[in-house]
Amino acid sequence: MPNASIVAVGTELLFGQTVNTNAAYVSEQLQLLGVSVLYHFTVGDNPARMKRTLALAFAESDIVVTTGGLGPTQDDITKEMIAEHMGAPLVYDEEAKARLDAIMRDIGRANYTENNMKQAWLPEGCTVFYNNAGTAPGFALERGGKTAIALPGPPREMKKMMRESVIPYLSQKSDSVIYSKMLRFYGIGESALETALLPIIDGQTDPTVAPYAKEGECAVRVTSMRRTEAEARAAVEATVARARELAGAYLYSEDDEEYHEVVVRLLAEKGLRLAAAESCTGGLFAGAITAVAGSSAVFDRGFVTYSNASKTALLGVPADVIERYGAVSEPCCRAMALGALARSDADIAVAVTGIAGPGGSDCGKPVGTGFYGIARRGARGDGDGEGASDARAEVHEKYFRDRGRRVNRQAAVLELCDMVRKAIEGGGR
Amino acid sequence: MPNASIVAVGTELLFGQTVNTNAAYVSEQLQLLGVSVLYHFTVGDNPARMKRTLALAFAESDIVVTTGGLGPTQDDITKEMIAEHMGAPLVYDEEAKARLDAIMRDIGRANYTENNMKQAWLPEGCTVFYNNAGTAPGFALERGGKTAIALPGPPREMKKMMRESVIPYLSQKSDSVIYSKMLRFYGIGESALETALLPIIDGQTDPTVAPYAKEGECAVRVTSMRRTEAEARAAVEATVARARELAGAYLYSEDDEEYHEVVVRLLAEKGLRLAAAESCTGGLFAGAITAVAGSSAVFDRGFVTYSNASKTALLGVPADVIERYGAVSEPCCRAMALGALARSDADIAVAVTGIAGPGGSDCGKPVGTGFYGIARRGARGDGDGEGASDARAEVHEKYFRDRGRRVNRQAAVLELCDMVRKAIEGGGR
Repeated sequence: MPNASIVAVGTELLFGQTVNTNAAYVSEQLQLLGVSVLYHFTVGDNPARMKRTLALAFAESDIVVTTGGLGPTQDDITKEMIAEHMGAPLVYDEEAKARLDAIMRDIGRANYTENNMKQAWLPEGCTVFYNNAGTAPGFALERGGKTAIALPGPPREMKKMMRESVIPYLSQKSDSVIYSKMLRFYGIGESALETALLPIIDGQTDPTVAPYAKEGECAVRVTSMRRTEAEARAAVEATVARARELAGAYLYSEDDEEYHEVVVRLLAEKGLRLAAAESCTGGLFAGAITAVAGSSAVFDRGFVTYSNASKTALLGVPADVIERYGAVSEPCCRAMALGALARSDADIAVAVTGIAGPGGSDCGKPVGTGFYGIARRGARGDGDGEGASDARAEVHEKYFRDRGRRVNRQAAVLELCDMVRKAIEGGGR
Repeated sequence: MPNASIVAVGTELLFGQTVNTNAAYVSEQLQLLGVSVLYHFTVGDNPARMKRTLALAFAESDIVVTTGGLGPTQDDITKEMIAEHMGAPLVYDEEAKARLDAIMRDIGRANYTENNMKQAWLPEGCTVFYNNAGTAPGFALERGGKTAIALPGPPREMKKMMRESVIPYLSQKSDSVIYSKMLRFYGIGESALETALLPIIDGQTDPTVAPYAKEGECAVRVTSMRRTEAEARAAVEATVARARELAGAYLYSEDDEEYHEVVVRLLAEKGLRLAAAESCTGGLFAGAITAVAGSSAVFDRGFVTYSNASKTALLGVPADVIERYGAVSEPCCRAMALGALARSDADIAVAVTGIAGPGGSDCGKPVGTGFYGIARRGARGDGDGEGASDARAEVHEKYFRDRGRRVNRQAAVLELCDMVRKAIEGGGR
């Protein structure tokens, strides 16, 4: 199994102005190709320090991936340092020049400078990765059993090149094929999930089953490396089927979707429309749902009823319910869900009222307390919502350990997604 | 000026499961102390590779800061490797032991294991940084002109220790004092801002004026290093005053606040309440405003009117306005703002309707188009909103270059914040 190191080049990273997200992305992609990662380095545009970094990286790794420093300015020296380290002269690449010409013509800079031309010089004998999202080409260069892979620094350009050029390049050098799936779970803790999945974790070397840490949920990557893609895929699918048996109640995506993406997909599949009444999440749930392109087909409207008066005015929550039970209560949440359904064109309405913190626990309920309600049209109901006599609402209380306002609110959004998925899939509560 | 390298220890970083945000945070804090950063390294829990990494880091840097690898398991070897490299034996620290005892008692684990005890052993002669957010203590160790600083890996623990222990520790070793302010600008591009601020950037060595890249806005850090804090502060304030003269129209925070935090602060200062009617942002603006603790005092309610029917039902936008001009239009936005004001207890209501993409441009308007409206109670008005005869609305169109749905929506949220700030500060439009 080959190994790799990743060298990020950029003074803005050393200043702390920019977080190096490239290293994590490249690492994950390399792992999926069966390449283990030994080191990440970050270095500025200092030739002596870059030289020492490359020396250490190449001394210990089969593959060295660099990100950044491929641009047109004098400070961009990654290509030159790699060429020098590997003893390959820079030569002029006609296609790179033609592509640069085309880009510069497009943006109306016909007479661009000598500097821009710098990007058309590439190490002799390299495999060029033309850049479909920017100007600087990347490349792979092999010498003496070592491989250098140079990628541009902007994450969008880097990721596109990684997907379109680097992964095919590395895959074709390998005699095995990797197939992998990321499963997403909600409603179960990391250690409980690991315990549940023990039969497919313990003693199993292929597919591997690796838990990933996520905020408020769990993810597990199932990966197989086999001779053919069909074999790898079959092995992964068999393990995924076992995971479904072992922890299916918590499994919300087998394809690395966000929970709000799953909700939009399920609503679209069933031709259902959604409304939301939010207190403590303050619009975050609607914001997450509408972040999905095409959500306008399934999301009807949202009520951000932050004040008590707005709960009564917009949703018809009786003022005496709020007075008697408080805004953070089962009856208030039920009235919010039924009110949102009655005052919308949606088939399903969700509601949440809770205490996001840091204040608000003076009502006697701790920060992290929330009531979650869902109302559906058409079922035989209990008739306690104005104009929603055919609607039925279910409400549950859930307490999340207080981890700060931001995390508490995100947890509430996931819980709302979970409630919608279970309602659609008929799991109920 | 001393220099430093940062070594992050953790296999999860090399797997790409976790992004190393610690390096950027520590780098920025060190820069603010006048320490330049030469390298970031990431290494797993492999003793040989950690040894080579520490050797390179110490060979070139005055200070080496490590994050991670201080926990109780056998894999946690950062402390041991530093102690070995610097020739300091590990000794038993009574206070660390007493603190561990107290934490374990609190969480009900009286008979904890030998492993936990490992955290009470620290390098002889070190300055201990007790951990106020977790169990593993950090430390600083000086030997032969070099300083090792070991911090825990979890960002929350690391940042707290950095703020409370490391910055005072390093400051007290310096004979100069750093003072710095982060200014935030909106509505001006990065290069235009640099041009505007040229008089305080060019040829000025103290305070330094350094632009930072931000999404949809610009930030500038003004830093001074002087003999006393009073001197440094006075120098920074004088430069900030100049920045205000040069680009004050775009300056929304002198204290590194997010724009929605500024909006909540200004509303609270004036005793004003806000309502929002959102179409393309789908609740994101309300979500941002209510992310601020205490926003319940200033945010009344939000209307997420995603469907055309909901614009009419919830905000009273006449159906024929939508039919004649479209939902993404000046008249629709005006009716949304006035409707939100009339249907709330707020003093100010904002509205946005636009095209977030990727679809939606079939109405003849490109993705990135948006109409932004603001309505206020009390001013003499034009009487075109139901129940808002004393209200006045102003609407403007703004086009942001399409940079994908997520960024487009964030840009719209900033534009809404900008509109509220200017209305409150009397700038108008």
